[in-house]
Amino acid sequence: MLPDNVRKKLIEIVGEDYFRDDPQTCISYSYDATPLYQAMPEGVVFPGSTEEVRQIMKVASHYQLPIVGRGSGSNLSADTVPSQGGLVMVMTRMNRILEIDQENLTATVQPGVLTQDLHQAVEQIGLFYPPDPSSMQVSTLGGNIAECSGGLRGLKYGTTKDYVLGLEAVLPNGEVLRTGGKLYKDVAGYDLTKLLVGSEGTLAIITEAILKLIPLPEHRRAMTAHFTDLETAAQTVSAIISARIIPCTLEFMDQGTIQVIEDYAEIGLPRDMAAILLIEQDGPAEIVDQDIEKIRNICQQTGAAHVEVARTEEEGTRITAARRNALSALARLSPTLILEDATVPRSQIAPMVREINRIAKKYQVQICTFGHAGDGNLHPTFLTDARDKEKVQRLEQAFAEIFEAAISLGGTITGEHGVGMAKAPFLEWKVGKTGMDVLKGIKQVFDPQGILNPGKIFAETSHRKEGKDL
Amino acid sequence: MLPDNVRKKLIEIVGEDYFRDDPQTCISYSYDATPLYQAMPEGVVFPGSTEEVRQIMKVASHYQLPIVGRGSGSNLSADTVPSQGGLVMVMTRMNRILEIDQENLTATVQPGVLTQDLHQAVEQIGLFYPPDPSSMQVSTLGGNIAECSGGLRGLKYGTTKDYVLGLEAVLPNGEVLRTGGKLYKDVAGYDLTKLLVGSEGTLAIITEAILKLIPLPEHRRAMTAHFTDLETAAQTVSAIISARIIPCTLEFMDQGTIQVIEDYAEIGLPRDMAAILLIEQDGPAEIVDQDIEKIRNICQQTGAAHVEVARTEEEGTRITAARRNALSALARLSPTLILEDATVPRSQIAPMVREINRIAKKYQVQICTFGHAGDGNLHPTFLTDARDKEKVQRLEQAFAEIFEAAISLGGTITGEHGVGMAKAPFLEWKVGKTGMDVLKGIKQVFDPQGILNPGKIFAETSHRKEGKDL
Repeated sequence: MLPDNVRKKLIEIVGEDYFRDDPQTCISYSYDATPLYQAMPEGVVFPGSTEEVRQIMKVASHYQLPIVGRGSGSNLSADTVPSQGGLVMVMTRMNRILEIDQENLTATVQPGVLTQDLHQAVEQIGLFYPPDPSSMQVSTLGGNIAECSGGLRGLKYGTTKDYVLGLEAVLPNGEVLRTGGKLYKDVAGYDLTKLLVGSEGTLAIITEAILKLIPLPEHRRAMTAHFTDLETAAQTVSAIISARIIPCTLEFMDQGTIQVIEDYAEIGLPRDMAAILLIEQDGPAEIVDQDIEKIRNICQQTGAAHVEVARTEEEGTRITAARRNALSALARLSPTLILEDATVPRSQIAPMVREINRIAKKYQVQICTFGHAGDGNLHPTFLTDARDKEKVQRLEQAFAEIFEAAISLGGTITGEHGVGMAKAPFLEWKVGKTGMDVLKGIKQVFDPQGILNPGKIFAETSHRKEGKDL
Repeated sequence: MLPDNVRKKLIEIVGEDYFRDDPQTCISYSYDATPLYQAMPEGVVFPGSTEEVRQIMKVASHYQLPIVGRGSGSNLSADTVPSQGGLVMVMTRMNRILEIDQENLTATVQPGVLTQDLHQAVEQIGLFYPPDPSSMQVSTLGGNIAECSGGLRGLKYGTTKDYVLGLEAVLPNGEVLRTGGKLYKDVAGYDLTKLLVGSEGTLAIITEAILKLIPLPEHRRAMTAHFTDLETAAQTVSAIISARIIPCTLEFMDQGTIQVIEDYAEIGLPRDMAAILLIEQDGPAEIVDQDIEKIRNICQQTGAAHVEVARTEEEGTRITAARRNALSALARLSPTLILEDATVPRSQIAPMVREINRIAKKYQVQICTFGHAGDGNLHPTFLTDARDKEKVQRLEQAFAEIFEAAISLGGTITGEHGVGMAKAPFLEWKVGKTGMDVLKGIKQVFDPQGILNPGKIFAETSHRKEGKDL
């Protein structure tokens, strides 16, 4: 429970309706989309303006109260679990698209706007905001920015980072920082915009963003290629890129995933195949057709068992939906689903999938792997039951080995989900001690009291590699 | 002069041939491409490896010796002038392209590689590294990264920042920081890669970079449109973008620039026009042709006096060369040429050009303006003689007003040249006091002794706005 005077001050700032500390609300904000993590906040506050955020930050700072910003909480790294109590600040009331500027091709938004709402608003007028995390129906743009969300279109269009031109953010001391602008080029000082993108709510609370838009591609077309072995699927990914074609989507599903999606959606996926690639291209119609034809030829040359091109855009959407639903489908299989996002250079997909399968076998856990093959961002997915402590422990050991394998293949522990609590103990494996020192120094600059989302990114102790000192 | 023991240590590290402190060498490295700035170093060192850079940094750190990293010194913000003496560390010996990875579409390079050498190496095999600063024939990639160089293709392809995936950099304490990798997606900790890009040698010395490549566009075509008034030219820029076309180049030249280029190159530019737009599109041939046709129609609708489409790629190259040579042409006009890069949102180009002309008149200085209209990045260019102290003083007042105008139009003091010494006193106008505090804090994290490129980005005192307190 918060002390009475703190409660009173917060209610003064946001009004009775927008401060809650009843058990029901606290439970609702004690977890996010990440399984296995939960912690109770002492209060939940829903600011309606940047000014209210400033006032709340000043109170939090004065009382050294932990403060966890969040939108829909759809992140998968336990980034919005209030692990040290304190306040959860929910940004969903600040949900207006403030402007769509067609001359400068920018959208100015509040952090609580749903990703898909922006998609719809801009696509109606022939514009495009590419980042498309699988959670886009429920995720907020503020959350996307805090996590640097990726998605299926990352290979061709990049991730959230590539579309944030400017930010308004409130520092823990209540000061407002404004970065960038409606500018593609701005080198006035270190790039604080990109530093805040992906900072997971540990440096500042984002209260407004200027996003870059691009023209909406005229046309899109999807195809699938089926493979009887993993290696061939991975080689095909490399062959497409080596042919100088960058599809907008280049997704991979292994046999485990195929079978589960088919159980769930019954869309005619081949249960006997080792892997499927789902490929989509967008752009001017004639170019899309040319690219899809070239890709079909490549798939046939590398040895795909079956290649099928969607005849219509609707048919393509149906195929893509299968991939987008992979997570929901897998979620039906067992009470707890843990989704990882180890990422490797695209040329290392086959070795990485082999490693995942070896590790799964070693620890006797069931793993389905799907993901963004084009950018090497795989989602090994573990099916378990959180109540089975012994199994969860085996899973954690398997995770650690998968992260180690990704790094030794030139990859990273997280491609798009963020570090949060889930991967904090492994961060040093990727960035090294020197990197950790610099990251901690930067955290200190923004948040000297350590009240902003404490316990995220930085772990109390780093995970030790098997039999090795760090 | 450096103390004897320091000299001795540096010679031990790099060998006799690669340490110099004779007057001739010191003079050669006392200036860069920025007029009006010069300062003598106490020694010049040419490391051949990351290990040598580490050793040199340790010596500099131990003796608290200022250390200025540089490549070709083609920057325009006095970023590589050793304003506080000490060492200049020249990275041009580390000039190897270490790898071009066709599967992952990356190039791994040392900092001393010339920009154009990378262009040629990758274009030969159908790949493309888009950043094209006007100095690309002489500039180094390390310098491009330190400055976040832009160029003519920024509108469609972005700037250097968008093509750096990973870095190896040496901190002042001699530790090696490794960021990113051959990965399009990596959210393991704050984005230190993007923080180092554009940090102007004030945080670390870059010793290796992993750059992103894309497929080389098949085809390119150029056109020009002539305008009898500025407003129509600016409206045309907005009309093209609003029609959802993003040309790869969309350049602007005013009458002063046209006349000077024509004097220099005699390529038949119309001396009587108020402005010319130079437009280029690249991509698949049929799409390029369609886009150029659409742009031609837009230019005619908005009221261009004359529109001319290059018949061949060679003819296009000749037209583009005219714009690329603008700087050399202007340089012939007077002993000293000062090139600014105030940048505004694209919709504000006409008001900005009007402001520049008003300010030029007020201070009785000659200004030619050209630049990257598509991304609002203008280069007002002042012609003067550095020996004329009174005129230089008027110019400085004119600069200050131009920066103020750019900011009040939602722009920035520098789009692609960097802050360096030249714009350090104005940085606070753009980023505010809160921003300055954060930037200084970050500098402190990387370089607590302040030995790396001191006097750059951070000015001793900020410039006061006319009649206003900051």
